[in-house]
Amino acid sequence: MAEASSRSRRGGRAARRAMREDSANAPVAMGSIKRNIPYTELCSAEGLDIIEANAQTILREIGIDFKGDLEALDLWRNAGADVEGERVRFPDGLVRSLLATAPATYVQHARNPARNVTFGGGNVIFAPVYGPPFVHDLDHGRRYGTIADFENLVRLAYVAPHLHHSGGTVCEPVDIPVNKRHLDMVYAHMRLSDKPFMGSVTAPDRAADTVAMCEILFGADFVAENTVCTSLINVNSPMTFDEVMLGALKTYARAGQAVIITPFIMSGAMAPVSAAGTLAQALAEAMAGMAFTQLVRPGAPVVFGLFSSALSMQSGAPTFGTPEPNLVLSAAAQLARRLKLPFRSGGSLCGSKLPDAQAAYESANSLMPAVLSGVNFLLHGAGWLEGGLSSSFEKFVMDCDQLGMSATLLKGYDLSEEGQAMDAIREIGPGGHYLGSAHTQAHFEEAFYRSTLADNNSFEQWESDGSKDMAIRANAKWKQWLNDYVQPPLDASIDEALQAFIAKRKEGMEDRWS
Amino acid sequence: MAEASSRSRRGGRAARRAMREDSANAPVAMGSIKRNIPYTELCSAEGLDIIEANAQTILREIGIDFKGDLEALDLWRNAGADVEGERVRFPDGLVRSLLATAPATYVQHARNPARNVTFGGGNVIFAPVYGPPFVHDLDHGRRYGTIADFENLVRLAYVAPHLHHSGGTVCEPVDIPVNKRHLDMVYAHMRLSDKPFMGSVTAPDRAADTVAMCEILFGADFVAENTVCTSLINVNSPMTFDEVMLGALKTYARAGQAVIITPFIMSGAMAPVSAAGTLAQALAEAMAGMAFTQLVRPGAPVVFGLFSSALSMQSGAPTFGTPEPNLVLSAAAQLARRLKLPFRSGGSLCGSKLPDAQAAYESANSLMPAVLSGVNFLLHGAGWLEGGLSSSFEKFVMDCDQLGMSATLLKGYDLSEEGQAMDAIREIGPGGHYLGSAHTQAHFEEAFYRSTLADNNSFEQWESDGSKDMAIRANAKWKQWLNDYVQPPLDASIDEALQAFIAKRKEGMEDRWS
Repeated sequence: MAEASSRSRRGGRAARRAMREDSANAPVAMGSIKRNIPYTELCSAEGLDIIEANAQTILREIGIDFKGDLEALDLWRNAGADVEGERVRFPDGLVRSLLATAPATYVQHARNPARNVTFGGGNVIFAPVYGPPFVHDLDHGRRYGTIADFENLVRLAYVAPHLHHSGGTVCEPVDIPVNKRHLDMVYAHMRLSDKPFMGSVTAPDRAADTVAMCEILFGADFVAENTVCTSLINVNSPMTFDEVMLGALKTYARAGQAVIITPFIMSGAMAPVSAAGTLAQALAEAMAGMAFTQLVRPGAPVVFGLFSSALSMQSGAPTFGTPEPNLVLSAAAQLARRLKLPFRSGGSLCGSKLPDAQAAYESANSLMPAVLSGVNFLLHGAGWLEGGLSSSFEKFVMDCDQLGMSATLLKGYDLSEEGQAMDAIREIGPGGHYLGSAHTQAHFEEAFYRSTLADNNSFEQWESDGSKDMAIRANAKWKQWLNDYVQPPLDASIDEALQAFIAKRKEGMEDRWS
Repeated sequence: MAEASSRSRRGGRAARRAMREDSANAPVAMGSIKRNIPYTELCSAEGLDIIEANAQTILREIGIDFKGDLEALDLWRNAGADVEGERVRFPDGLVRSLLATAPATYVQHARNPARNVTFGGGNVIFAPVYGPPFVHDLDHGRRYGTIADFENLVRLAYVAPHLHHSGGTVCEPVDIPVNKRHLDMVYAHMRLSDKPFMGSVTAPDRAADTVAMCEILFGADFVAENTVCTSLINVNSPMTFDEVMLGALKTYARAGQAVIITPFIMSGAMAPVSAAGTLAQALAEAMAGMAFTQLVRPGAPVVFGLFSSALSMQSGAPTFGTPEPNLVLSAAAQLARRLKLPFRSGGSLCGSKLPDAQAAYESANSLMPAVLSGVNFLLHGAGWLEGGLSSSFEKFVMDCDQLGMSATLLKGYDLSEEGQAMDAIREIGPGGHYLGSAHTQAHFEEAFYRSTLADNNSFEQWESDGSKDMAIRANAKWKQWLNDYVQPPLDASIDEALQAFIAKRKEGMEDRWS
């Protein structure tokens, strides 16, 4: 694990490449799932070739804007790109050669080493929803999120057995000034959970604060040599990186911390309406952003991200769980594997305003294709409601149940003699019943995934239990989880140092609310 | 089409094999979807080899019971099987050699030829729920089904643009005597719809009635040469065919009509708890049943079916949309393709008592793996509720929306120049917006699947529309569909002949209620 994750500050491109090749055989961190089923690949090799060629044309002819960041433009100019104003065009081969230093896999360390996760390869990591300004539950409906909600969502993610990652902005704590809330958010992840987490990206100094707090939590030496946070850099599609995101990107990459370069695309608005067009543009954007991380620091861990939705041509709103973004997603995962880089997608996405059937159909139709297609880091795995405007407490636990099922699916087939069960078939024979067989009795406990929320009782039993739908059962479940939550111990001196850091940083700031 | 579907009553095994090979290039009937995405194959080739070898062991060593049917036992004895009481054991190679005459694809004709469907190959056919004794809607809750409900479900399936098939027992009309209701059911499909349909299997004479009614509808000569119904023969797993199903099977196969041989399996009850064990047993059962159709009439069309669920080890109830049956399903589709035979699975399955989030998660988790894995005939595609005990009117239209999305997914990628959209990307460039691009304007109408039930409006708009969840919107939708329904014209003399046949058959029967 140390080999795969520790990075020398010196080694050149060849050394990075060697490390990257080694890392394919690196041990898997305990926190993530190792997939044991083949990838679902919906796009033909010929289709991928066309998309790659078109992405190269975009990079060479059209170019990508790097806005408000003279240093970025200098870095590109020095690397051999054609810089004209803020537009950067890339000679064929430049971007790919820069990507050669990006690691194929990396370990993100958690403060509890048993919860370390491996990005890339056959590894799968589930993380909660990211970004909603609102929260929603059946008791109080929809309202702006607060730091109390944020902390409760972090607690739920900690309790959830199938979330490997604590995520980042599980909701916006709008009761805290905009320029201060990143400190409270990062602190909540550090204090209330021992799972790995994401850092702030809303300004370069907030990214620097995240790194500083990581140095307090993990020790500066450890942070210098290891990845301890993975943060989300969205592309302002089409083909634009803005000053804020570039600043955060540079801060994290320089510190050797991971970033996810994510073309954030609603086809029809930020990209063409067609899957092949969206894919070519997204590939160009992701490659340019990922290559830029390697310009900043060769070997810095980076993830190929994609957030894909489609524009409703009726309402102008984004739609989720529909077939076209799934075609984009599946091919994007294939393209990421061709680049030998970790891949991130959205998770349990939906446009519904309630944790109802629409929410569930759309979420399942987002989650399963992502899992089958080979996502390594599944963001928005639990709690996403209303097109990402709300974090739903009920949907959080509903989605977590679905993640558990995905984890089971990823295990694939047991082809051992015990799995083949020929003795059981011989024992029972035609017309028999397997419930009493020795094989069933031996595997009774772990034979099937047990849903935490599905009601499979008889209609009469369900009626006498109160005729509850899944959302109502989920309302009880998240309250039970919060009740069950036990805060993982954190060294008191570290906690004090974190609090002191936050207090000092806040001292110097005027409250800002936008 | 005629070449693929018409069958000589004479040709031997070699002729059938030649026909079967030809049929791979036969034109596709308009009613079904031609898939344009690769198959999702979750099981390795080595895994399939193990399962096939184990199925062969089951056939050779353990055997299959053919109960209460001396003719079946004679047929097997004459074919070279080892018959001991009602137990049939099969020397290696016998079953496979019999299957060589089963067609790889066949056309099921509808009375409207534009609605003919092709089973097998890359074709996909969606059919509604089959079998529930109850119906459910939001207005009246759960109640026993009646012929009025049955007729309304047939009307809904006719209106539904993404159902290619009218199905069979869309609900049990329990207001009609058990021994008469098949006549009313078949007549409802024939009169109220012009889509293809399924026949009765609950007694050999009811199957014969179905064939006789088909002869009235299509003409006896046409029925003699073409497949006009496809009916469902469930295996009494483990490893048992009963007298009733064998009788119906023989009636249909002799008439050259198609049957689906379906191991109906709840793992843990009718098969081992493991996927590999379930698969070996199901493969042995399906192969034995399908081979039997070829003993009855070489060349008779037959479908490899599988209904796979898992037993809840807590309640003893079946569970749906869970990962283990999906592993079974995916490998079964692979095994069917190895046999070059059409494959049938379940569709939008769930255990929920309401059209809520549980119903939707479980249904999506059943439907998408079936579609991706390569099901040819998707039964229970719309309306299934409560473990198949209820046909839900709301869920019917909800599922139909999901089938529409599946149809779009199956189309795959448009890799034409227009699909690549490079002109659009050049036109818009970095920082632009695609909504106004010439490409978007040209493809505005058909760019994305338009859900009939999803609400993607703003929270405020949704609230001012009444804060309706998807089930409430679906309640209005099925009523609108019934209101929109226009009965397809049926020749008056045919209708009279059908009615006369039914009246005459009913005359001779005492009402039986069980």
